[in-house]
Amino acid sequence: MKTQKLLVIGGVAAGASFAARARRLSEQAQITVIERGPDVSFANCGLPYYIGGEIPERKSLAVQTAASLKAMLNLDVRTRTEAIAIDRTAKRVLVRVLDSEKEEWLDYDRLMLSPGAAPVVPETPGIDDPRIFTLRDLGDMDRIAAAAQPGMRAVVVGAGFIGLEMAEQLHRRGLTVEVVQIGQQVLSLLDAKLAGMLEDELKNNHIDLHLGEQVVRFESAEKELLCHLTSGAVLPADLVIMSIGVRPESRLAKDAGLTLGERGHIAVNDFMQTSDPDIYAAGDVVETRERTMGGQIAVPLGGPANRQGRVAADHIFLAEKARPYPGSLGTAIVRVFEMTAGTTGFNESGLKKSGIDYDTVTVRDFHHASYYPGAKPLNLKIFWEKGSGRLLGAQAAGQEGVDKRLDVLATAITAKMHIDDLCHLELAYAPPFGSAKDVINIAGFTATNMHDELLEVTSDFPDASADVQLLDVRPNAISNMTPVPGAINIPYAALRSNLDKLDPKKPVVAFCFVGKNSYFASRLLAQHGFKVKSLAGGLSVNNRQKSISC
Amino acid sequence: MKTQKLLVIGGVAAGASFAARARRLSEQAQITVIERGPDVSFANCGLPYYIGGEIPERKSLAVQTAASLKAMLNLDVRTRTEAIAIDRTAKRVLVRVLDSEKEEWLDYDRLMLSPGAAPVVPETPGIDDPRIFTLRDLGDMDRIAAAAQPGMRAVVVGAGFIGLEMAEQLHRRGLTVEVVQIGQQVLSLLDAKLAGMLEDELKNNHIDLHLGEQVVRFESAEKELLCHLTSGAVLPADLVIMSIGVRPESRLAKDAGLTLGERGHIAVNDFMQTSDPDIYAAGDVVETRERTMGGQIAVPLGGPANRQGRVAADHIFLAEKARPYPGSLGTAIVRVFEMTAGTTGFNESGLKKSGIDYDTVTVRDFHHASYYPGAKPLNLKIFWEKGSGRLLGAQAAGQEGVDKRLDVLATAITAKMHIDDLCHLELAYAPPFGSAKDVINIAGFTATNMHDELLEVTSDFPDASADVQLLDVRPNAISNMTPVPGAINIPYAALRSNLDKLDPKKPVVAFCFVGKNSYFASRLLAQHGFKVKSLAGGLSVNNRQKSISC
Repeated sequence: MKTQKLLVIGGVAAGASFAARARRLSEQAQITVIERGPDVSFANCGLPYYIGGEIPERKSLAVQTAASLKAMLNLDVRTRTEAIAIDRTAKRVLVRVLDSEKEEWLDYDRLMLSPGAAPVVPETPGIDDPRIFTLRDLGDMDRIAAAAQPGMRAVVVGAGFIGLEMAEQLHRRGLTVEVVQIGQQVLSLLDAKLAGMLEDELKNNHIDLHLGEQVVRFESAEKELLCHLTSGAVLPADLVIMSIGVRPESRLAKDAGLTLGERGHIAVNDFMQTSDPDIYAAGDVVETRERTMGGQIAVPLGGPANRQGRVAADHIFLAEKARPYPGSLGTAIVRVFEMTAGTTGFNESGLKKSGIDYDTVTVRDFHHASYYPGAKPLNLKIFWEKGSGRLLGAQAAGQEGVDKRLDVLATAITAKMHIDDLCHLELAYAPPFGSAKDVINIAGFTATNMHDELLEVTSDFPDASADVQLLDVRPNAISNMTPVPGAINIPYAALRSNLDKLDPKKPVVAFCFVGKNSYFASRLLAQHGFKVKSLAGGLSVNNRQKSISC
Repeated sequence: MKTQKLLVIGGVAAGASFAARARRLSEQAQITVIERGPDVSFANCGLPYYIGGEIPERKSLAVQTAASLKAMLNLDVRTRTEAIAIDRTAKRVLVRVLDSEKEEWLDYDRLMLSPGAAPVVPETPGIDDPRIFTLRDLGDMDRIAAAAQPGMRAVVVGAGFIGLEMAEQLHRRGLTVEVVQIGQQVLSLLDAKLAGMLEDELKNNHIDLHLGEQVVRFESAEKELLCHLTSGAVLPADLVIMSIGVRPESRLAKDAGLTLGERGHIAVNDFMQTSDPDIYAAGDVVETRERTMGGQIAVPLGGPANRQGRVAADHIFLAEKARPYPGSLGTAIVRVFEMTAGTTGFNESGLKKSGIDYDTVTVRDFHHASYYPGAKPLNLKIFWEKGSGRLLGAQAAGQEGVDKRLDVLATAITAKMHIDDLCHLELAYAPPFGSAKDVINIAGFTATNMHDELLEVTSDFPDASADVQLLDVRPNAISNMTPVPGAINIPYAALRSNLDKLDPKKPVVAFCFVGKNSYFASRLLAQHGFKVKSLAGGLSVNNRQKSISC
């Protein structure tokens, strides 16, 4: 077998994983890695945390160098070198050394395209102001860290994952931070009520949110940059972070005639081959199979990137032992001060777009045994296919244990589990770690009850105009402290003996603080002939005013 | 439909869950709960933590009372009442009120047996000494809390889950604690090396361990109780906790002629029916299907108990909508000071007993991104069926994130996932929560490499007599500080240029600190024609002396 020449364009997550795996599978391969930036294989997910000082050492983010990769993996790594064009017929790539402008053709037997995705920079007037930054690599990080001084005013445009992390970290650095978000909520992937918990957390930390707003113009004033918003509001800033999203760096692929997806990502098969079988692509630049239902999905995150790189190397060297990339779920998580929220699988807008007939419920319980000190409430929303009960997606928000529930549910979705499977997941339980009935089991019970028509839920309070009896089953004392207008208060424990206070001909919507006692009340009332719905998640999820737990 | 009379014997986890679910499914049912003890539905998993003061309020463990269950669920709860005999023909149970000695027959349409399991008390001479305690209920807890004064010496006999929790909590209360364990390790379910990490943690907290020992005699001396061990050692104690295991309280069932399992548990079908279809059983008293391979298993823990109670109620009231209990995995977890360890699915002795041809590997990585502050090493061992690659069991030990990995792997085992499925679990990753390649992915990669014959591992250092080259691929400086006798040190980064220092005819066992660089070295050497194995888990798992990370 002749020596394989592997050429890798982009040496961060997918490219570095590809090269490392390739080397483990072939000592003989000649592996060259071209990287436009000055660094390879750095920890890009850590960039915001260095800016905020949580990660104190810059070097912990830049572990590998061209020299270390040479020593460890015998890779020929060329940084500050850009790929200019692909000549697919001759199987070679034109590269330019950025510092010398020297150009050179590099041959390949197999090419890996892993150039990543670049932050979107809109064409807003004034966007070229040097006080406006994006964050992608160590250089960006250094520039922001140099510019962002305590006491300054920062505006973060875009409240996705990076935007939220940057808002927190700039605040941690001592800046005053405001966030501008085009949508009506932060993290557009997330359920609005769960996103609301992150919004509350931002506000509690004195970060102002401007929802439903865009910057229409940046104006350079004497000592500040003025961000003019759609509404006419003007936010003065010393520093602006643009974090409105990323776009795949697929120009090179496009110019070479490779097939792209609808949104400009490189299209690949299950072994990460592009439309040219000798050219692979992986990481933020590609779109892959959506794991649950088989559509297309682009997930610009480190986990999929690393694993895709590995799949491509296996395909080149392992012949029939190579296993396909099974697709991406889109599992993602973000911490915002003391709160954490995340998602896996389908979200509600994805389900609506796909036309899947789904059902959903939000439950709330403590992240570990309620009687063990430190128990924090955790909100969990799951989505399943109506009829089959197949789990399609999950979202969670809370202070503790969000990552664990997302991971379990990502695994369950991957395994094509159904809602009744969630009832009997046997999760690790000792008081510091969980509950005898974990919130995931509770979600399974609730969904199964809905599926079995034992329970009807509503995700929202009824309209004021709705002809229903709004039943507050919280204890009297609590209901009196935080009354809900228009509601009848009959505590759950007193309900059996007070049925005469309800009109059996009029539908009931029962609620409590978290949706548990209202479920109990629903079962009781349903058996007495009432038409009744329980408010899923209760006041805790559906009332942004502070409610008192019951 | 006539009113169902449900009679429940034992009102803690399974019995309380059964009764609560039954009430939600039937307002009409007449539900009576008999409980021998003074308390129902208490949080028995919390008992040790109250003794140690971690749970400060006793009332947080005893949430429900007979009165609250009457108000909430219309249950007729009779505490301090013991079931004496079952008359299956007449469908009635003879009960005795303990305080008045009054006896009475109670009729049932369906009977639930959920009496739990009692701590095993051996017939050791001197066992009746009042300074010897077991821990099962709130009364036991109160007695231990009253007796255990700071400064006292406690001996805990049995180092299972309860024994370890009690050792920590008595230490927390200010007692000097020693632990006596019949086996050669704590937690006999666990891999010996992972158990060793808990043993180190106990010792670091000044808790002496006496492994391979039993108490053969308790001797009441003037001011202390002397525990005489098999070895002849004598441990003076002011207080002894017997925690050597539990036995199912199945006498009533046995006397009634119900079928028992081999170890005395009540046998049940998938709907928790005993050999008498009108009698159900659930909780610590039963054995159920083992979930993975279909054998029999008894798991005396709160999670299965609660869910089994629910299944039984569903079977009575939901007709064809009732779903079977899918069996138990045996997921369990324990925290010992700063360390946590746990298991799910098959353990090694279970696999050996079952005669399953299995393979296993231990990997070690950080619980979240290594570059994010606070990353703690986590050791993960997985078991899979050779050939098919089906995941059968997992164990983990570490300071953080053990519960999450066990939960994901419990879900994966339940879903009949294979080792290659673990490679592509898309788990939630942001630096505070995980890694782009989680330790679970790493376990999948490693197992798949073994399956694909890309990697051979050994779980132990070779015998001194073995004719192998022991290759230390750690950096020189570290190897010099903690040399391993008989090993050749060639750092991984220098291996390619030093192949001539190894004898190609002699097998190599490569090792490093965690097993990662030794894997890299194995791949390199294998491609150069060497017969090579990598030491799984490296020195971190296989060397109880303190090793230095590389």
